[in-house]
Amino acid sequence: MSTAYQAPLAAQRLAIDQACRATGLGAQPAVAETLRDVADAVLEGAARFAGEVLSPLNPIGDRSASRHDAGRVITPPGFPDAYRRFWSDGWTSLGAPPEYGGQGLPLVVSAAATEMWAGANLSFAMCPEVAVGAIEALRVHGSPALRGAWLPHLVRGDWTASMCLTEPQAGSDLSTLRTRAEPDGDTWRLFGRKIYISWGDHDLADNIVHLVLARARGAPEGTRGLSLFLVPKRLPDPAGGGPANDVDVLSLEHKMGIRASPTCALALGERVGARGWLVGELNSGLACMFTMMNHMRLGVGLHSLGLAERALQLAREHAHTRRQGRTAAGADRPIIEHADVRRMLLTMKALVHAARGLCYTAAASIDLAHGAADGAARSRAANAAGLLTPLVKAWCSDLAVEVASLGVQIHGGMGYIDDCEASQIYRDARIGPIFEGTNYIQAQDLLGRKVLRDRGATLEALIADIERSADTLPLGEHGLGMLRTQLARGCLGLRRATRILIDRDGDDPNLLGAIGHHFLQWLGTLAGGWQWALTAAAALPGAARDPQARALVDTASFYAAHVLPRAGMHEAIVNRGAGPVTDAALAEL
Amino acid sequence: MSTAYQAPLAAQRLAIDQACRATGLGAQPAVAETLRDVADAVLEGAARFAGEVLSPLNPIGDRSASRHDAGRVITPPGFPDAYRRFWSDGWTSLGAPPEYGGQGLPLVVSAAATEMWAGANLSFAMCPEVAVGAIEALRVHGSPALRGAWLPHLVRGDWTASMCLTEPQAGSDLSTLRTRAEPDGDTWRLFGRKIYISWGDHDLADNIVHLVLARARGAPEGTRGLSLFLVPKRLPDPAGGGPANDVDVLSLEHKMGIRASPTCALALGERVGARGWLVGELNSGLACMFTMMNHMRLGVGLHSLGLAERALQLAREHAHTRRQGRTAAGADRPIIEHADVRRMLLTMKALVHAARGLCYTAAASIDLAHGAADGAARSRAANAAGLLTPLVKAWCSDLAVEVASLGVQIHGGMGYIDDCEASQIYRDARIGPIFEGTNYIQAQDLLGRKVLRDRGATLEALIADIERSADTLPLGEHGLGMLRTQLARGCLGLRRATRILIDRDGDDPNLLGAIGHHFLQWLGTLAGGWQWALTAAAALPGAARDPQARALVDTASFYAAHVLPRAGMHEAIVNRGAGPVTDAALAEL
Repeated sequence: MSTAYQAPLAAQRLAIDQACRATGLGAQPAVAETLRDVADAVLEGAARFAGEVLSPLNPIGDRSASRHDAGRVITPPGFPDAYRRFWSDGWTSLGAPPEYGGQGLPLVVSAAATEMWAGANLSFAMCPEVAVGAIEALRVHGSPALRGAWLPHLVRGDWTASMCLTEPQAGSDLSTLRTRAEPDGDTWRLFGRKIYISWGDHDLADNIVHLVLARARGAPEGTRGLSLFLVPKRLPDPAGGGPANDVDVLSLEHKMGIRASPTCALALGERVGARGWLVGELNSGLACMFTMMNHMRLGVGLHSLGLAERALQLAREHAHTRRQGRTAAGADRPIIEHADVRRMLLTMKALVHAARGLCYTAAASIDLAHGAADGAARSRAANAAGLLTPLVKAWCSDLAVEVASLGVQIHGGMGYIDDCEASQIYRDARIGPIFEGTNYIQAQDLLGRKVLRDRGATLEALIADIERSADTLPLGEHGLGMLRTQLARGCLGLRRATRILIDRDGDDPNLLGAIGHHFLQWLGTLAGGWQWALTAAAALPGAARDPQARALVDTASFYAAHVLPRAGMHEAIVNRGAGPVTDAALAEL
Repeated sequence: MSTAYQAPLAAQRLAIDQACRATGLGAQPAVAETLRDVADAVLEGAARFAGEVLSPLNPIGDRSASRHDAGRVITPPGFPDAYRRFWSDGWTSLGAPPEYGGQGLPLVVSAAATEMWAGANLSFAMCPEVAVGAIEALRVHGSPALRGAWLPHLVRGDWTASMCLTEPQAGSDLSTLRTRAEPDGDTWRLFGRKIYISWGDHDLADNIVHLVLARARGAPEGTRGLSLFLVPKRLPDPAGGGPANDVDVLSLEHKMGIRASPTCALALGERVGARGWLVGELNSGLACMFTMMNHMRLGVGLHSLGLAERALQLAREHAHTRRQGRTAAGADRPIIEHADVRRMLLTMKALVHAARGLCYTAAASIDLAHGAADGAARSRAANAAGLLTPLVKAWCSDLAVEVASLGVQIHGGMGYIDDCEASQIYRDARIGPIFEGTNYIQAQDLLGRKVLRDRGATLEALIADIERSADTLPLGEHGLGMLRTQLARGCLGLRRATRILIDRDGDDPNLLGAIGHHFLQWLGTLAGGWQWALTAAAALPGAARDPQARALVDTASFYAAHVLPRAGMHEAIVNRGAGPVTDAALAEL
């Protein structure tokens, strides 16, 4: 048995402070006060909850899975109790608005807690994460009446939420959604089927707030005819425990991972129609949903980060305790002494730190987009957050799969056995690149909407940040000098390639699709190097006397030596353009 | 439901012919005759068996798994019947020596059948594969009496085999094995416990021939004290169905994948000692085992190839039928029209073909090492096979994980559901980099034993082959010109890096461990390009009129554009040496 998840508090605090410095968020008095007075206590409390309550349930959830029995969803043993403690202890309300009972912490702090929930138990973590997204969507788009009725419960956490988009014929392409809404007085009646609804039903809470994308009667075809509706599992009743709405669970999916998280097929309106309330304007459902979706995408990044951190913990523990092979003197030795095991661990460590830096920077940018004093700063931060969101979602989720796979490899044969949590992490991690918009969708969003639409302006600001951070590193042939040189070279290449893409934009409809993946991976690799440059520059002065600072410098050097060479690979592929992908005849594929 | 596995007969035949040309094996009259008269019929028969019998059982095996009940192992429904048909139809004896009832086909032909078994049903395929390795070990090392008693059954296939190496304390490091053998007249009594024994017990056959690595009484410590013993499940009885030997199944592992393949923990000698017969010389067990192990490593390469091919088939079928997104005219379109889906499919296709070329080339080299007319040619071929074996094992198994993951991604949410065979392939593929020597062990073997020991001579022959093939491609800025240039550049870099490694050999005990992985991946990437160069050169003349030849040229160009850039990444990492890995303090990892 491996030890329980242990939140990497020092690394998380470092990343929070780094993100606050890099974005300027830390200069806000209210944030500075929170970081000084509150953050550590919150994170230590969250760490205890994650390690003591959620982590022990993780293998149980994998073995038992949620199940569907006579129309009800039953979560694995221990999950309902853990969730009751979770919301009773206030963990659902960390970042929520105070006017609805929330604690109003900056996202950059609550993000660290989100990472912990996922590192300890991804299946569990997904449930409150949907609610945070729903809170945001309702806060921004909901009428005062809707907000007053539903937000306090969602913030308190005694009710949860779900996001209902996908239908069998409509996955990545929402334009073909068929669920329809008929007006019925002040409210609506919804009819349709939704699939892949995470935590779409369960036994953790009394009510579930489904946010459902549907087409009102008479609305136009395509995505412009979609509206967002709030469809509760139970109808509101001032006395509590209102009557069931017309929402049925048809089935649960049996999945490779996140097996405790019930993935539901829901039927709305099999009888009289599921009663719903319009959220936001009619036919503006996609915009409302994207408020929630953007939050979920950062959430996937944070969850992937948590999984990758957990994979690292498990691999590190195994590498220090498992003995195999001999020293020259014949003594058996822990496998961490084998250079390839060290290479794998360092790769994991270097990637996890880079991912954490990027995730928290995205969170800090969102905080700044809401809270900066002047409008220009808010706008800049919003653009940065917009750029970082698809990057964090896709780069970190791909990275978590890689890190989890290295974790399995370090475990050897044990890593392939169900009892080994490293095996579970590997299976759990594979959903990240798929859901909340596949990583292809993220790459299209990044390159199409976030880079080309403003003709590279927001990206240029990020590139300039990376360059400035590289310039603070010492010159030379040593590790940090290589980090400096390679980041500078990578930024030049990225700027050049982006310029060419902007000039060619529109020439070839397939260009973005053909190179989007490698463009995103390229940017992620360089942005991860940026995070390491920031960390190494801060750690370098203390590295001679402090082994932990020394380790940060060494891992930054490792990132330069073993991870940054990927940038050149992605650059070469991007610069070849669409031809290699689109020249091939479809019929022969 | 996806369609059944369909053996890629044309691609396999192309790869067989290419390997026979590249190695010179095809010039042997007996081989030429086999290729002309027999190979197609054999492969078509194998394709039918794989598609009609094995493939339908694959999802059943995943769902049901083998189970352990009252000391017996029960395989999933349909497996015992399928195995009976498998050996009755002669599939176990394809490559086996005619003097024991085998068909004596070249390995390069039987390898294609091996690929099929795994592509259709990896769990099943593992069972006969162990027997082929055991046949080889007994043929080379067994006494006439042992060969006479056991080989006819193994060749016929009514008995199967297992390879018993690992013990709880001894995985990659066999020097600490504790299973002991006590002499008992002409035979031995074995005592010990073995774990991770694939097909170590089952209900497919009347008897199982365990080849067990153990330490004879009084033997030295370490690997030099290991001997190989043949320990049958049932003792020989001329009348058949002899008494049970003292071998018990303690448990089966519950695994991420290959769930129909029973992975057993075996206890030998819980009562009187398990009766065994010495194979080969006393204390030369490791050498005997390596005859088998080398076969198994090529087997992992072929099995990984089969899985990757199957992942490609499933993804291709899904991409052509699943509709998502719209054309500019508003028509819905199959997802293969999305450029990123094409990119993923082309990556899978480019890698699968490269893997097949390398696997079959390794097989042809082994054929040549046994059958070439003159001793120098045999020796050259044996060296080539020795170099290619760890390369094929590690590169193809890592590649299969990547290809299977791309297959999941193309399936979107469905790829994460247990019912989807793409999900099973992904889980099945993850064992490849772990067993039969982890890919770290392969990298050490490749660089230490196969490259440095002969001071790069064998590698240089391979590099020269790659260069010659690149030189046959047209010059220019088009795809094949890029393939030519990049292969040439990669070969120069690899030769230079190898020279430095040879010069530094011994300076740093950690060097091979620190860079072995990237050296192997680098060589694999270039050798894969070599296979594409051979294919493209042959296809180019017909490309203007034949769409399939055109597709081969296009996919070769894609390999140059999207896969070969990895070579530069691995080169950069290798050239940094051990420092980035070994500078980091162990205590801080």
